[in-house]
Amino acid sequence: MRFDVFTLFPAVFTPYLEASILQRARANGLIEVYLHDIRAWTTDKHHVTDDAPFGGGGGMVMKPEPVFTAVEDVLGAPPACPLILLTPQGRPFTQRVADELSTHPRLGLLCGHYEGIDERIREHLVTDQISIGDYVLTGGELPALILMDAISRLLPGVLGDPDGAQDDSFASGLLEYPHYTRPADYRGWRVPPVLLSGNHAQIARWRREQALLRTLQRRPDLLERAELSERDRRFLAEQTPKPPDV
Amino acid sequence: MRFDVFTLFPAVFTPYLEASILQRARANGLIEVYLHDIRAWTTDKHHVTDDAPFGGGGGMVMKPEPVFTAVEDVLGAPPACPLILLTPQGRPFTQRVADELSTHPRLGLLCGHYEGIDERIREHLVTDQISIGDYVLTGGELPALILMDAISRLLPGVLGDPDGAQDDSFASGLLEYPHYTRPADYRGWRVPPVLLSGNHAQIARWRREQALLRTLQRRPDLLERAELSERDRRFLAEQTPKPPDV
Repeated sequence: MRFDVFTLFPAVFTPYLEASILQRARANGLIEVYLHDIRAWTTDKHHVTDDAPFGGGGGMVMKPEPVFTAVEDVLGAPPACPLILLTPQGRPFTQRVADELSTHPRLGLLCGHYEGIDERIREHLVTDQISIGDYVLTGGELPALILMDAISRLLPGVLGDPDGAQDDSFASGLLEYPHYTRPADYRGWRVPPVLLSGNHAQIARWRREQALLRTLQRRPDLLERAELSERDRRFLAEQTPKPPDV
Repeated sequence: MRFDVFTLFPAVFTPYLEASILQRARANGLIEVYLHDIRAWTTDKHHVTDDAPFGGGGGMVMKPEPVFTAVEDVLGAPPACPLILLTPQGRPFTQRVADELSTHPRLGLLCGHYEGIDERIREHLVTDQISIGDYVLTGGELPALILMDAISRLLPGVLGDPDGAQDDSFASGLLEYPHYTRPADYRGWRVPPVLLSGNHAQIARWRREQALLRTLQRRPDLLERAELSERDRRFLAEQTPKPPDV
């Protein structure tokens, strides 16, 4: 899968792309990431990419020309693949959207200043708008990294463990069950005995119930869309809902 | 405001902290960021920070000892400030949570592997758990940067424009109105005439209505909690809801 990222701050991407699974995925040829500095498409002496807003008010607005020409130079006109603007005004990013996007062979990611990007870019250039959450950031750089991370780990071969992505929170629509590793007793806090029992069926059942319980307590909204078996439903029906414990 | 970040990948933070408003905020003494490499608190020869999960299954789990000792060395035992675990199982991060967190003089941020962190860290060390969205990432590093970015820009003096944070999406509970900058005509796409009128009252009204309209079309769920005037409500009542256009 190929990502083409359009940004004013290409340097902030590099270390994350060189760490952890994204580095491995790139080294193994499973993903390619191309960083395009929008400033390289300015034509004036000072390489200006923003300007004051029409109608007044604070903040600067990203100009249309460098963005249009950068994107069209790299992706064609109109763009040959989806071009996603990272913006708080986009559709909410979820694991389901990550799944959907992971099926594309190529994606363009446009990082705006969150303060403002000329509306004509939104109307006439981008094909999708995504928000990673209901909060305001300085720009689309971190959101673009979030998308690349979440999408890449869904691609076959990126995670070392083929089942790694299946047990994660949200993969089944539930929060994940608790994990424990050595020591079995840390400061008097002991690992639940079932995990030391060697009984795999019991362990699987305990984990499923913990995932259900945790989702019920913390994010009951997720249960409405989760894939639940008859047994899951019976287990949930037996629980008395508690208030969130976070 | 001071951030103490506990991570296995301190290097991925540096370039973002050295770019844009976070750099300015640090240069102006408005925020301080300390990066603590959890690996420095391991005591074995190979600096091991994770281990296989009790009960089997794929993935590795972050061990309790290095995390407990790192946090307690830096923040005291128990921690002298909130210690937030970035995890998909946490309470959802929103602009309101950013506001709430921006009132603390100091915050600890703990970046786990998203694959797993020993449950005893969650139960006995962290004081808060936050999720930046319903999707799965490799680790808590990008979420920690998201928090620092969103929180820092709410601190007095961090944004150059004192009103900068007020007009943003979500600050008033609405999506932001459209922005335009020069040229007034780009490829035949013209800036709305009202923005060129010089009539500030009309411009303010147009922007408010655009913000209302956009929120109604794309994120009607936000309107329930938004601060609306009588005039806003009348305007909304006059609109025929349209399906989302993203």
